[in-house]
Amino acid sequence: MTRQRAQDDGALTTLKSLLGQRLSLSKSDLALHGRSESYFPETLPDAVAYPETTEEVAQLVTICAEAGVPVVAWGTGTSLEGHSLATQGGVVVDFSRMTRVLDLRAEDMTVSVQPGLTREALNEELRATGLFFPVDPGANAALGGMAATRASGTTAVRYGTMRNNVLALEVVLADGRVIRTGSRARKSAAGFDLTALMVGSEGTLGLITELTLRLHGQPEAISAGVCAFPDMGAAVAAVTDTIQMGLPMARIEFVDAACAAAVYAYAGMDFPLLPHLLLEFHGTEAAVAEQARLFGEIAGDHGALGFDWSVKPEDRKALWAMRHNAYYAILASRPGARALVTDICVPISRLAEAVEAAQADIAAASVSGPILGHVGDGNFHAVLLVDPENPEELAEAKALSDRMVRRALALGGTSTGEHGVGLGKLGFMAAEHGDGWAVMGEIKRALDPKNILNPGKLVPPWQ
Amino acid sequence: MTRQRAQDDGALTTLKSLLGQRLSLSKSDLALHGRSESYFPETLPDAVAYPETTEEVAQLVTICAEAGVPVVAWGTGTSLEGHSLATQGGVVVDFSRMTRVLDLRAEDMTVSVQPGLTREALNEELRATGLFFPVDPGANAALGGMAATRASGTTAVRYGTMRNNVLALEVVLADGRVIRTGSRARKSAAGFDLTALMVGSEGTLGLITELTLRLHGQPEAISAGVCAFPDMGAAVAAVTDTIQMGLPMARIEFVDAACAAAVYAYAGMDFPLLPHLLLEFHGTEAAVAEQARLFGEIAGDHGALGFDWSVKPEDRKALWAMRHNAYYAILASRPGARALVTDICVPISRLAEAVEAAQADIAAASVSGPILGHVGDGNFHAVLLVDPENPEELAEAKALSDRMVRRALALGGTSTGEHGVGLGKLGFMAAEHGDGWAVMGEIKRALDPKNILNPGKLVPPWQ
Repeated sequence: MTRQRAQDDGALTTLKSLLGQRLSLSKSDLALHGRSESYFPETLPDAVAYPETTEEVAQLVTICAEAGVPVVAWGTGTSLEGHSLATQGGVVVDFSRMTRVLDLRAEDMTVSVQPGLTREALNEELRATGLFFPVDPGANAALGGMAATRASGTTAVRYGTMRNNVLALEVVLADGRVIRTGSRARKSAAGFDLTALMVGSEGTLGLITELTLRLHGQPEAISAGVCAFPDMGAAVAAVTDTIQMGLPMARIEFVDAACAAAVYAYAGMDFPLLPHLLLEFHGTEAAVAEQARLFGEIAGDHGALGFDWSVKPEDRKALWAMRHNAYYAILASRPGARALVTDICVPISRLAEAVEAAQADIAAASVSGPILGHVGDGNFHAVLLVDPENPEELAEAKALSDRMVRRALALGGTSTGEHGVGLGKLGFMAAEHGDGWAVMGEIKRALDPKNILNPGKLVPPWQ
Repeated sequence: MTRQRAQDDGALTTLKSLLGQRLSLSKSDLALHGRSESYFPETLPDAVAYPETTEEVAQLVTICAEAGVPVVAWGTGTSLEGHSLATQGGVVVDFSRMTRVLDLRAEDMTVSVQPGLTREALNEELRATGLFFPVDPGANAALGGMAATRASGTTAVRYGTMRNNVLALEVVLADGRVIRTGSRARKSAAGFDLTALMVGSEGTLGLITELTLRLHGQPEAISAGVCAFPDMGAAVAAVTDTIQMGLPMARIEFVDAACAAAVYAYAGMDFPLLPHLLLEFHGTEAAVAEQARLFGEIAGDHGALGFDWSVKPEDRKALWAMRHNAYYAILASRPGARALVTDICVPISRLAEAVEAAQADIAAASVSGPILGHVGDGNFHAVLLVDPENPEELAEAKALSDRMVRRALALGGTSTGEHGVGLGKLGFMAAEHGDGWAVMGEIKRALDPKNILNPGKLVPPWQ
């Protein structure tokens, strides 16, 4: 690594005079921002900054740009691919002091927020308005991080991903300029879609300092249910038919038999050890009842073993608590283990094939890996459990993940449906995008010629 | 203009050997591709090319890049802002020989097509599949052009714009490289969203040679209806409530009293000369009936004068024929006139205010301008009628349009909701985007340093 460390060039002194106590060099703070939720080794930044305003972020970036010091944005640190690890040192910008709701416009169904606000905190603020923000990646992530990684989750089949739910952004660029992308209008044809370019850019093109989000009406009624299928192919066929009929599923999740076993053991329940679908409809009372009934008919046509559904909130909460706890249930199935979570996404017609091939690979390996995912999007995760003290297991899990990615690309899919590139998928960008990856690098060089924004991530290396 | 004309440098000779008769220099062909649907003066290209393959497009661009000859993509020539006028000369690339459906995957609800295929031709191909492509800008435009201009129209409130319905693209870049953006997976978090960057780039970053589109299930049932409101504020309030309740309107259009007068005179019908809403619901039979009934209640709460709705196809067709004919009905209200069509889009909470201010401006002017639009998106059009032989009227119409744009920007909106920038809105990009417009220029220079792709459009001038 040829880059100068931040300490060497006086940038930290200048930053200290800008931020005072809000520039932290404490070991515990550096350690806290040197870890990820995943299997990557600890990599400490040189400092952690806690700005409170866009102006401070712009000044911080200007100072770092002059000194050539890397700047890495940090939301809640819940990303799974090491996006926010400062692998070339520099300053981690922690947005936990920028968490305000700036402008709630219920009539427009939009809200402008600071990037450190989490999705749960936003929905708490929205509770009395009849509106909600639907994107739900599981973790209570910061909205800025969710935009930067193009997050999605269980509700994307109905409400879309962050791509669809970010209307506008304020962004601090690598040279300290502050731009606003988009407007509060619901659509625009006015030039390059800089909003979409920034969403998913993982902090390599700019730091998001404000987001304007699209809100949705809280559904009048919700029906939810669960059913078992004899095999994955039958479950996927039922979902395909349901989508083609235009039934607007709000969530449609699957768990494989191994995942069902872990989940039901954790919940102390007893269910058939088969692939299951968990689903939810949002709408008027009459609509959600009709939709659940129609889904039941379709599921029956595909050999489903019954379909239990309910409009009662307590039943629904129990169902989704089970789904949201799946990750912990799986971890609990092997005490002391850590997880490498795969994230491929394929065309739905190839989903059963991709899942079955992954299951066969896992069955032939020494590590276990229950599978769960978002069947309406063709996106699934194998939670590969490894002993963190055993490098051979980690290598085996990585090899399994790599194999799944190569298969996804061959099937017309992508290496990452929702977790992003970070460190874990960087090695697949050339295979996935071909010359398109070079184009990403050309855009990066145009907007960040000194390569100070999250260097070493997302684009082809050039420094 | 310092740029060499294509004739001067032998590029046309090389192109001729590549394309033979499919490079046209005929006066009638140049004239046909030197006009637009709008008020811009004729500007002839040097040649018109009719490629048949991606490979030919790539060779054509390579030849033009070497010679510094402008390359301008052309779909059906139905854009309203002069996007495809070769204002610096060069070669217009007409995609009318690239109209094939390449890969229809009903189970994935995707289709890959060539860029010259029109949306109506695609839907004709899809008829027996139970699927359809919903984006409907009115004109039977080519899908490549619809993507390049980020088109939308009457169904965007339910199905989204081209931004939401293009999954992947094949694009020929300014140096002849061919890239594929996106995949057939329904979502991805794998790097910069080059698909979204190309959608709406108006031919300045690349030429689209293939599109993978998201399809939707043909609705089982459709209900449609119309109702009059005492004023625009009441109509907009009814729509806001309807959206917040989560009723999924498939179309929600408004016409002002002047537009209603023109439309009803043209159709030989008799309706109150008041603002009207026209709407449509898509879903199951029970759902669309319930939705229409609920909308009727909401409309009644806002003073609507009755609400006639129907699930009969003939009633629906008559209703939307009336809406689709509105442009011609308005033109017919002043024989011999041409139209300058405005296209602002504002947050819905400001829509009534923007429409009423536009009406007041038009009332104080000498030209007439009935108003119609997509109320669910906050997007509306004044069809300003001018005598093409009268430069003062054109100047007055332009001044009215400019005033509406400045007002839209002040209200948090955009200069163009769906027609795009082209020549007509270029003058507002700096005001709308600030430094963001400079960023667009930086991206353009990175990807097209010789400025050969649709030069003089969209980004700040630099050559």
